[in-house]
Amino acid sequence: MSDSIDVGTEVNWLSTDDLETVRGRVPMVYVDAVPVRVDSTGEVTHIGLLLRAMPDGTISRALVTGRVLFGERIRHALLRHLEKDLGPIALPRLPANPTPFTVAEYFPDPSLSGYHDPRQHAVSLAYVVPIDGEPSPSPDALDLTWVTPKEAMSPEVIAEMTGGHDRLLRLALGHTGQLP
Amino acid sequence: MSDSIDVGTEVNWLSTDDLETVRGRVPMVYVDAVPVRVDSTGEVTHIGLLLRAMPDGTISRALVTGRVLFGERIRHALLRHLEKDLGPIALPRLPANPTPFTVAEYFPDPSLSGYHDPRQHAVSLAYVVPIDGEPSPSPDALDLTWVTPKEAMSPEVIAEMTGGHDRLLRLALGHTGQLP
Amino acid sequence: MSDSIDVGTEVNWLSTDDLETVRGRVPMVYVDAVPVRVDSTGEVTHIGLLLRAMPDGTISRALVTGRVLFGERIRHALLRHLEKDLGPIALPRLPANPTPFTVAEYFPDPSLSGYHDPRQHAVSLAYVVPIDGEPSPSPDALDLTWVTPKEAMSPEVIAEMTGGHDRLLRLALGHTGQLP
Amino acid sequence: MSDSIDVGTEVNWLSTDDLETVRGRVPMVYVDAVPVRVDSTGEVTHIGLLLRAMPDGTISRALVTGRVLFGERIRHALLRHLEKDLGPIALPRLPANPTPFTVAEYFPDPSLSGYHDPRQHAVSLAYVVPIDGEPSPSPDALDLTWVTPKEAMSPEVIAEMTGGHDRLLRLALGHTGQLP
Repeated sequence: MSDSIDVGTEVNWLSTDDLETVRGRVPMVYVDAVPVRVDSTGEVTHIGLLLRAMPDGTISRALVTGRVLFGERIRHALLRHLEKDLGPIALPRLPANPTPFTVAEYFPDPSLSGYHDPRQHAVSLAYVVPIDGEPSPSPDALDLTWVTPKEAMSPEVIAEMTGGHDRLLRLALGHTGQLP
Repeated sequence: MSDSIDVGTEVNWLSTDDLETVRGRVPMVYVDAVPVRVDSTGEVTHIGLLLRAMPDGTISRALVTGRVLFGERIRHALLRHLEKDLGPIALPRLPANPTPFTVAEYFPDPSLSGYHDPRQHAVSLAYVVPIDGEPSPSPDALDLTWVTPKEAMSPEVIAEMTGGHDRLLRLALGHTGQLP
Repeated sequence: MSDSIDVGTEVNWLSTDDLETVRGRVPMVYVDAVPVRVDSTGEVTHIGLLLRAMPDGTISRALVTGRVLFGERIRHALLRHLEKDLGPIALPRLPANPTPFTVAEYFPDPSLSGYHDPRQHAVSLAYVVPIDGEPSPSPDALDLTWVTPKEAMSPEVIAEMTGGHDRLLRLALGHTGQLP
Repeated sequence: MSDSIDVGTEVNWLSTDDLETVRGRVPMVYVDAVPVRVDSTGEVTHIGLLLRAMPDGTISRALVTGRVLFGERIRHALLRHLEKDLGPIALPRLPANPTPFTVAEYFPDPSLSGYHDPRQHAVSLAYVVPIDGEPSPSPDALDLTWVTPKEAMSPEVIAEMTGGHDRLLRLALGHTGQLP
């Protein structure tokens, strides 16, 4: 979960100090996106996983995720974070339906909900987003890999995900009817 | 709701007599599709409405609709009916999620559910489908018009829809958060 | 999937021969229900699994399932099958939302969709249904057991389910955010 | 949208000043609930509307709504606000599925999304909640009325709702398939 985009965004600018203060007082609004490749019938063939440094200090496989800014529509936040993480020509296909497939509640206490963020309480709206174009991982991600639904559920891939992202991925595959 | 596609489809062929017999005994499985144009954030800007002869004898504004054949996947039926009604280069974007936005229950008795089909009891899975390409109405449709969500809810357009398709359209717009 | 209810239902009566004929020509409409116990916050604590003879000849753990009759509303079919399988004082809480959490496509060919019914092509609308009362398994079921979400995902329980019901159960738990 | 509950809640206490500061910097997480009465098949028969003083200074028909506190699960926030607004024996039936039927984005600028809150940017997860018990309006509400879906869509009732609550109600009725 990166907040680097905020610095310098004039309207929504929050100093690091201010952000810390706010984070200790109210839940933060986030979006999570599961990038997928689909075939001509809409069926998911691959899931895109980033390799990146996580808030818990690990290097992990991760989904696209980020904060919704003050005054920002959820659709715009989703598009902004997808472009930030997958580059300008990824051509993400945002869903017509604004309802997330699940709501992930991240807490500093990992036992509360199964979703964990040591920095904050975040309420994250999670979406499955087909990618039509040519994604390239952003500089702050180390890699982007595409795996099949079956590979995504392998113990090896699950072991590389933290903070509950493996569970979020299972729920995304369940939502698309693709959970093996 | 057209069944013309069935005639001649070898594997799923049903004579008109057989189809009549079956229709009086069990509910038929159908799909309904609401074709839409979306902007880069996924928000619906226009809805596509066909003008066609309906089973109730009227010429009405209608959604894409049709029967699921024996042995056919729902995704394939949806794609087949979209191509039949909107042509081969409409490029429909089928949803990754197989769950319909609503289930329309059509009955010969119009008072039962608000959805009406004089020929049969049909259980129809309804989907919102973004159209990326260049649709052209099929020969058995008289016209294809694109209207805004606001126009779609105008008394004029609603008055031209029958069988409950106007209600299905309202539910589709509700699902996408676009109901005025 | 039991059809015994049909025999004797005057309006919807189908002879065994007729049913066989119809089954070979069109997909049948079914409903599946995952009976659950929920706590005061709505969170699933237990899932109810029937032990019964299945169409494939096995004795398996199974969900509530059955056919929608000609002229019957889906809600009424769901209630009828729940009462048939769980008794008259189970007090099932049908969802206000008619949208299923998934659509299971059962085919005679087990490789097509992951859902298998040797008798027919069935399109089944699947719902999670909280049970408030005191369920008792119907005479044609051998047993009814309540398991936790974690137990439901154990290899032992999964091994006792056939026809894709284990996958349907995983999707139900994903839908409720309870997939471990 | 009432925040009176926050005052005195030890763990989550925010002074009025702090709350004002935070509100100007990040979107707030809210929940909206549409209280309904359902029949034995789960179909919505009535919608509960509160009469209350709104943030925009009007006395209006309103849904149950409120803030999610730091460290609080969404289910608990939903239950807390339902009990606060409908009393301790309303017996709300929270959905097993954590996915809202829509996400309402309230902005100080009423033209941005159709949802308006002069005090803040709030992202609200909206749920339909069947009420089983005997609700009584809380002291800070003036009245609680139950209307049918048809009555809820009458121009009279719509004219008494502000901030986009009338639209939220239409979306809720669409979600339950009850939009007239």
